[in-house]
Amino acid sequence: MKKVRVGVVGLGNLGELHVRHLQDKIAASEVVAICDVFDERVKAIQEKYEVPTGYTDYDEMLKKEDLDAVAIVTNVQTHKDLIIKACDAKLNIFCEKPLSLDPEECKAIEKKVEENNTKIFTLGFMRRFDPSHAEAMERIRRGEIGKPVLFKSTSLDGVSVIDELLDKCKKGAFHPWFFEMGIHDCDLSRWFLGSEISCAYATGGAYVREEFADYDDYDNGIALATMENGTCATIHVGKAAACSHVEAEIIGTKGTLRINAIPRRNRMQIYKDGYIAEEGIVDFLERWEDAFYLEMANFIDCVLTGRKPEVTVYDGTKSLEMAIVLHKSYMEKRLIKK
Amino acid sequence: MKKVRVGVVGLGNLGELHVRHLQDKIAASEVVAICDVFDERVKAIQEKYEVPTGYTDYDEMLKKEDLDAVAIVTNVQTHKDLIIKACDAKLNIFCEKPLSLDPEECKAIEKKVEENNTKIFTLGFMRRFDPSHAEAMERIRRGEIGKPVLFKSTSLDGVSVIDELLDKCKKGAFHPWFFEMGIHDCDLSRWFLGSEISCAYATGGAYVREEFADYDDYDNGIALATMENGTCATIHVGKAAACSHVEAEIIGTKGTLRINAIPRRNRMQIYKDGYIAEEGIVDFLERWEDAFYLEMANFIDCVLTGRKPEVTVYDGTKSLEMAIVLHKSYMEKRLIKK
Amino acid sequence: MKKVRVGVVGLGNLGELHVRHLQDKIAASEVVAICDVFDERVKAIQEKYEVPTGYTDYDEMLKKEDLDAVAIVTNVQTHKDLIIKACDAKLNIFCEKPLSLDPEECKAIEKKVEENNTKIFTLGFMRRFDPSHAEAMERIRRGEIGKPVLFKSTSLDGVSVIDELLDKCKKGAFHPWFFEMGIHDCDLSRWFLGSEISCAYATGGAYVREEFADYDDYDNGIALATMENGTCATIHVGKAAACSHVEAEIIGTKGTLRINAIPRRNRMQIYKDGYIAEEGIVDFLERWEDAFYLEMANFIDCVLTGRKPEVTVYDGTKSLEMAIVLHKSYMEKRLIKK
Amino acid sequence: MKKVRVGVVGLGNLGELHVRHLQDKIAASEVVAICDVFDERVKAIQEKYEVPTGYTDYDEMLKKEDLDAVAIVTNVQTHKDLIIKACDAKLNIFCEKPLSLDPEECKAIEKKVEENNTKIFTLGFMRRFDPSHAEAMERIRRGEIGKPVLFKSTSLDGVSVIDELLDKCKKGAFHPWFFEMGIHDCDLSRWFLGSEISCAYATGGAYVREEFADYDDYDNGIALATMENGTCATIHVGKAAACSHVEAEIIGTKGTLRINAIPRRNRMQIYKDGYIAEEGIVDFLERWEDAFYLEMANFIDCVLTGRKPEVTVYDGTKSLEMAIVLHKSYMEKRLIKK
Repeated sequence: MKKVRVGVVGLGNLGELHVRHLQDKIAASEVVAICDVFDERVKAIQEKYEVPTGYTDYDEMLKKEDLDAVAIVTNVQTHKDLIIKACDAKLNIFCEKPLSLDPEECKAIEKKVEENNTKIFTLGFMRRFDPSHAEAMERIRRGEIGKPVLFKSTSLDGVSVIDELLDKCKKGAFHPWFFEMGIHDCDLSRWFLGSEISCAYATGGAYVREEFADYDDYDNGIALATMENGTCATIHVGKAAACSHVEAEIIGTKGTLRINAIPRRNRMQIYKDGYIAEEGIVDFLERWEDAFYLEMANFIDCVLTGRKPEVTVYDGTKSLEMAIVLHKSYMEKRLIKK
Repeated sequence: MKKVRVGVVGLGNLGELHVRHLQDKIAASEVVAICDVFDERVKAIQEKYEVPTGYTDYDEMLKKEDLDAVAIVTNVQTHKDLIIKACDAKLNIFCEKPLSLDPEECKAIEKKVEENNTKIFTLGFMRRFDPSHAEAMERIRRGEIGKPVLFKSTSLDGVSVIDELLDKCKKGAFHPWFFEMGIHDCDLSRWFLGSEISCAYATGGAYVREEFADYDDYDNGIALATMENGTCATIHVGKAAACSHVEAEIIGTKGTLRINAIPRRNRMQIYKDGYIAEEGIVDFLERWEDAFYLEMANFIDCVLTGRKPEVTVYDGTKSLEMAIVLHKSYMEKRLIKK
Repeated sequence: MKKVRVGVVGLGNLGELHVRHLQDKIAASEVVAICDVFDERVKAIQEKYEVPTGYTDYDEMLKKEDLDAVAIVTNVQTHKDLIIKACDAKLNIFCEKPLSLDPEECKAIEKKVEENNTKIFTLGFMRRFDPSHAEAMERIRRGEIGKPVLFKSTSLDGVSVIDELLDKCKKGAFHPWFFEMGIHDCDLSRWFLGSEISCAYATGGAYVREEFADYDDYDNGIALATMENGTCATIHVGKAAACSHVEAEIIGTKGTLRINAIPRRNRMQIYKDGYIAEEGIVDFLERWEDAFYLEMANFIDCVLTGRKPEVTVYDGTKSLEMAIVLHKSYMEKRLIKK
Repeated sequence: MKKVRVGVVGLGNLGELHVRHLQDKIAASEVVAICDVFDERVKAIQEKYEVPTGYTDYDEMLKKEDLDAVAIVTNVQTHKDLIIKACDAKLNIFCEKPLSLDPEECKAIEKKVEENNTKIFTLGFMRRFDPSHAEAMERIRRGEIGKPVLFKSTSLDGVSVIDELLDKCKKGAFHPWFFEMGIHDCDLSRWFLGSEISCAYATGGAYVREEFADYDDYDNGIALATMENGTCATIHVGKAAACSHVEAEIIGTKGTLRINAIPRRNRMQIYKDGYIAEEGIVDFLERWEDAFYLEMANFIDCVLTGRKPEVTVYDGTKSLEMAIVLHKSYMEKRLIKK
């Protein structure tokens, strides 16, 4: 079987995860080159996953390697440039979310992607690939809950990582939580409700770590949005929960679907000292391991078969537009219309 | 033991429930008289619970009977008048929620109640007496979850009663859901967060029964409120759920308490046809039976001991003010400041 | 309404519970007399529940009082004598489980009860009245799970009370656990499976408190029984669990019913320190409060209406015979045939 | 990195699963050859997983291929012969459970494996690798529940596959359920309780499909075993449940660990028609996908590092001896001592 030859740019934890899946766990793909600004990191990942070549220069990788696809896992500021070059190189493209933090930039990317439309382009909205989310959507499409009218989304990181997250804010590596985390909830709101945001009000605060406020950020942000088709969504993002807790509830006219109502880590319970306890999910990598794998396997399958992915460049733009409304409302303390 | 002699006015389902508890299940009280505009209903309840005397005229009951207390379970429009007369009669008073639908009226009631302050006055915010809610508050007061910063409340009636509820709207017996149902969520928001509403945005719709819109009502209403102390609350009220589903989540700076995450009816599960299923709670009477009993037992105990109840006339006013903000926002589609 | 005039003999915790229900919570009954060997206890309960008269002599109570019924809540050794005298006095009788610890004695009681068959006789197998158990049986009778073929029963007290239980063993107030606790599981096995025991093997040990062995007792006893109709039951009794944990699973040819799979105390969860925890049930009084109330209300209703109770004197005999097989197998470490 | 060169013999569903993991999902291994009696099956799997060579003759594969290891996934009758030949070929060996159905044969295998002890030998008791089971054992080793004294195991296939299973019985491809399924429960009983069986009593029946009885089989078999160290185990095996339901409970002197108390398939719930429902696990492949992967990854790691696997040939013998006691008791309807 011909394998899809992939180059991966950006070798943080998530970048490494994608390399591992593409190289070791997806039979139809092989990572032929990797790229990162840190030379040592490149060498380490090359060795660990037997990647033939490594680069610290993206242009050089594109020039020298005979690639079928690139996976872009770098920080958001670089996405536009890397995508445009990949389009010029006529490559299939997987890009991590968010597409960009600037709607204008999104439009420019859209235009470029449209020119390269013989190739696959998709974004890392991996929640759609989580088996529970996928089954929920399947049931919605089968009409099991009638028309979805309300989506309640909760996306909380555990407090155990809050200082690390605060540190990333201080370094400018992270953006306010409605963008970093909430972009997923925005995408799911649009996906499940089948509409775009009309207006929203958001509130919350930096309750657990006041310093987040210095970066226009918060450890609990909560928004209520009305969509253009009259349905609505609540989005609660946070980073101070007892454990990693991402919950979703889709309320329809004929029933309700609920995902991860209790964010238990595995199937074990401990009965002790008068309590019945279950461990909570430790972090997002633990929660979404399957989803990250399935989204990448889906990308490779699209490349091989030419099937169009469900997640498009436009989802990147629209989800950003929604996140901007939420964050703006949080900052300006008023109802924001799109 | 001297029993508290109670007169109950208003003999709907809830009125009968209170009669049953006061007469049959609370040793320290006895229902010596009941009153309702429907003569047949009065006779029926008298016989069923062995109530010595019955009236169709409240004034007559107050005049002829030697009462220690009255329980007012009539429709909200009558509350002010009945409370004032009970105050003049120097009686201990239990009044169902909402206190009134008019803040001015609430003020007048407050003034009158203050004049009668040697007697007990309390309102039927029974959720505070639900064992799970009571334990949650106890843990909050012990500091187990740090400072409460976010309250997420869900109050849904099952769709099985929606037509009956619509019928009550048509008859003018029911008011918009943020008042009828949401008043409880408003009270709990204030109780758990220890603050009053600052502003809120509400949305939703008459998705399942469009006719609700003709009565400024909705089958799903959802609001996001910021409180004066900077904490916030989401309140989702509805009447089209799969079952009676009232859920509460209090998020603190050091932990989270959650009540009724899965609204199961009892302890039974059925494993069949590839599914594991639990029956949902049928209706609010089933859900709150214990709470209704405990709130009334608490009222009787306050009367006997002179202990001041935790739920005061001011909770009635403040909760109404909050409900008004939510409903106004829903109707005007904008952020409403108190 | 004429109230059923009840005399209660035996005023331990359970005796007091029955007095409270009969006197304060069941409108159709009144406790007109109570009896216990301890004079102070009689006086205390009389005052607390306004019981007109108290006795330390059962014969005197029967002679002087005009009773409709007696509730026998004394230790098992006295049951036969008290029941026979109540039969001679032509009274309706409620007797706590176990009926007796001697099958011969059971037969003598059966004979006497048959002579008094114009009156009600029932036993305190209250689990049958627990709403979840009652609903399970109703579903079984409706055929929802086909033919019940296997019953898995778990009856554990929490370790928090183990020393108190050990103390009762030392005082001879308690008998081995297959009798004290297991008698309920035996009754439920017979009820759900519709058959009597054929043979059983039991094992386990005094793992947590070795001293139980000195009294032919154990903190974990587990038995596997085959019933005469070919169905089977596992019964696990214990007194060293993390909380009070009584679970029942009825496996049928077309589905399974499960009761109390997770022995949570109420509807509250706490999310903290990486865990999602629920409090376990504290003790049997907390778990069965409703059931104790409903079984007594049912007894009073039977007395008033003449309806025959479902739990008969024969259930007392048969359940004992089953418990004897389990305990004998535990002691002799072999399969015991009935 | 040098990859472990594996030959897989036996290409049923499970054989294919192992090929997929070894070839596509475990970076450190490659399937260089496969073998099965059905030529078409060999060709199909070769193509699907890009396996260079295929055989219908095991001896030929061992002779021609330069293998590091073999994975034996054939029916149990062939295990001894295939293992002995693999030992003679000085290969690392992974063999599916059960090792054999004859204790004598087990001894012969043990002897041979001991001669080849410079190489790895392990068995497919994959449950030990399930994350929940692994965590439970880790907690037990840390002493979190004190000394394990009682193990309650439930291993049920869903009724949806019962006719397929019955068909395999008729074809002689399947053995009685205490062997096919129960061997896992026997292994876990030994693992968690740290002891071997002393005696057991088993019962149950062919309740749902009477024909199982013609093959000394049953759709529900339940056993109670006492172990040599005085601890005990209940084992319930079946093939007529509402869904695939494998549950384990380890009761210790200081706490209890429970695995898969509710056999939910994923994280999705549906609220509809008055019920809250979760899908049950469909089949064992769905339940144990992770465990099958982790056990094989562990085998490959042992081969590479020379680390001894925890599951040894002796576990195969001992677990069989326990299963024999259970089945014999079921057949002879008496307590069987080992």
